[in-house]
Amino acid sequence: MVFSRETQLSGPTTKRVRIYDVAQAAGVSVATASKALNDTGRMTEETRSRVKEAASNLGFRPNAMARGLIQRRSFTVGLLTNDTYGRFTLPLMAGVSEELVDQGVSVFLCTIEDDPALAKIHVDAMLDKQVDGIIASGKRIDRQLPVDLTNLNVPVVYAFTQAPAEAVSLVSDDAGGSREAVEWLKTLGRRRIVHVTGPKSFASVEERAGAYRTSVGGSGSVLFGTWSEQWGHEAVSQLWSVGGDKPDAIFCGNDQIARGVVDALRERDVSVPDEVSVIGFDNWEIVAAATRPPLTTIDMNLKALGREAGRLVLALAAGETVEPGIRKLPCQLVIRQSCGGVLRN
Amino acid sequence: MVFSRETQLSGPTTKRVRIYDVAQAAGVSVATASKALNDTGRMTEETRSRVKEAASNLGFRPNAMARGLIQRRSFTVGLLTNDTYGRFTLPLMAGVSEELVDQGVSVFLCTIEDDPALAKIHVDAMLDKQVDGIIASGKRIDRQLPVDLTNLNVPVVYAFTQAPAEAVSLVSDDAGGSREAVEWLKTLGRRRIVHVTGPKSFASVEERAGAYRTSVGGSGSVLFGTWSEQWGHEAVSQLWSVGGDKPDAIFCGNDQIARGVVDALRERDVSVPDEVSVIGFDNWEIVAAATRPPLTTIDMNLKALGREAGRLVLALAAGETVEPGIRKLPCQLVIRQSCGGVLRN
Repeated sequence: MVFSRETQLSGPTTKRVRIYDVAQAAGVSVATASKALNDTGRMTEETRSRVKEAASNLGFRPNAMARGLIQRRSFTVGLLTNDTYGRFTLPLMAGVSEELVDQGVSVFLCTIEDDPALAKIHVDAMLDKQVDGIIASGKRIDRQLPVDLTNLNVPVVYAFTQAPAEAVSLVSDDAGGSREAVEWLKTLGRRRIVHVTGPKSFASVEERAGAYRTSVGGSGSVLFGTWSEQWGHEAVSQLWSVGGDKPDAIFCGNDQIARGVVDALRERDVSVPDEVSVIGFDNWEIVAAATRPPLTTIDMNLKALGREAGRLVLALAAGETVEPGIRKLPCQLVIRQSCGGVLRN
Repeated sequence: MVFSRETQLSGPTTKRVRIYDVAQAAGVSVATASKALNDTGRMTEETRSRVKEAASNLGFRPNAMARGLIQRRSFTVGLLTNDTYGRFTLPLMAGVSEELVDQGVSVFLCTIEDDPALAKIHVDAMLDKQVDGIIASGKRIDRQLPVDLTNLNVPVVYAFTQAPAEAVSLVSDDAGGSREAVEWLKTLGRRRIVHVTGPKSFASVEERAGAYRTSVGGSGSVLFGTWSEQWGHEAVSQLWSVGGDKPDAIFCGNDQIARGVVDALRERDVSVPDEVSVIGFDNWEIVAAATRPPLTTIDMNLKALGREAGRLVLALAAGETVEPGIRKLPCQLVIRQSCGGVLRN
């Protein structure tokens, strides 16, 4: 599967004119511009003429998708999430916005709690606003949102949340990210690699631990705990309280654990990265960049996931066929200083 | 000014029936329910009857505000922000949602970048969706959003962003929060209180530093820097590299600085809070709770600010008069362990 962003080519010096350029030139909203060009909707004749004139002056030629959208759509996409902290949803939303803004499409985020009746009210509000599609998101990939989104009259794409069967769904490739972390540690010459991670009840924890075990060749050791700095401290205590060879690398299930591990090692006068390489998961800037030394980590590329979700929901809205099923998007190694080594290439 | 949440009293055992209860009972959206009850909108006669029957069965009696809303409104409020990281906007949005969900009103968040033309597209999209009002928010209180929201045909309330003159605006009381921090340190017996804060170019930095100086009685010392842990480390280096009495308390401009200060003191074997009390500002859980010891800090009460913004924007939408001007809402001391002391009562 290839998920590179589609590049729309045009002549070398001409910039494609989009519906929103027409809307801006005519001083109206994108939706009004589209209605004007399609001779639908209610507006004064003066407004309709002004839009058409602007389109003509600018040489506006809608492409196939745009034509589909213009005829039937409202130029808004709803993003629904129960991640009220925004840790996962906001990077995703940034990607969706980035992908859609060039099409003149706005993204509206609506957060829901775990009350199904209230969740339904918010979904109904989105449908009342005639969104072109809904992107459903969450805070973990093995839990469904507390509301049924099947059989709506608009397309739904699931991103970073559990999807029903036969849905179009996007998640990051946890196993691939885990492999990438371990391979990087092996490239740096590390041989005694331990995995300190979150609760076993998370599907992504099991997925990453499984890929870790395969990558280290069966000799691995996995410590399950909580998603916290404190657990990182405790894990180091456990690992350093037994005799024998100590690990020369610790692969952590998230950046908070990794920060706890790095702090605990420093307090034991174990040098990171000289004696032990530490790698995180998430690339959560506030944690990864403030750790001393700053964390090398695996980025789940949630922004890219958002871009792809935006592209797919618009494709569905335009009547294109999109294969259902779960798409796993690649994670990315972000090299800072906690493992040693330099950027490959 | 009093900002306590309005409590709506009814009989001791009866729960007020709201429009969304009617909508749920009839299996329609809130907007459809409101149209049905007002004999407006397009729907089948069967749907209209079902809604009226549900209202009658439940004993639905809209109050004055609800009547105003039901007649003219769409039951959505738009929240506009350029805080794409969500640090300030998401707690605010949680408050808005909490205040409005009982009225059956959904909140849609739209993030804008600093491009005025794109920002205008998103605002137009909100207006096209006929939101009942807009809450404008941002990432600092001394910068305006890159889009003009005056003269819209819906009410606008500004929360945690700079507002134009004569607007209804809500910010947290930076000076009050600063006073509260210093008073708490004084209550604990601290006498040599230093203030380590962010860049002078922030209005809130100046506001807090001014209140700090007044509270300590002119003897204060303020170190300006950046909003980072690293600056907290550097500030401790500076303070401990000179001779004479060391501070017995450090009031930090945000929690990241405070975390750097606490870590740097521990590494110098200075005990927090026994020898030095450290207090932060923000109550950003991810930072404050993970610090060792956990940070006592000032919470800006952004959720309460969001609730008040939601209440005011609906009041304006219902045609009530709201006094323009800047309302400063109180901050709140959150006691953990970095200052010593226990909860007052």
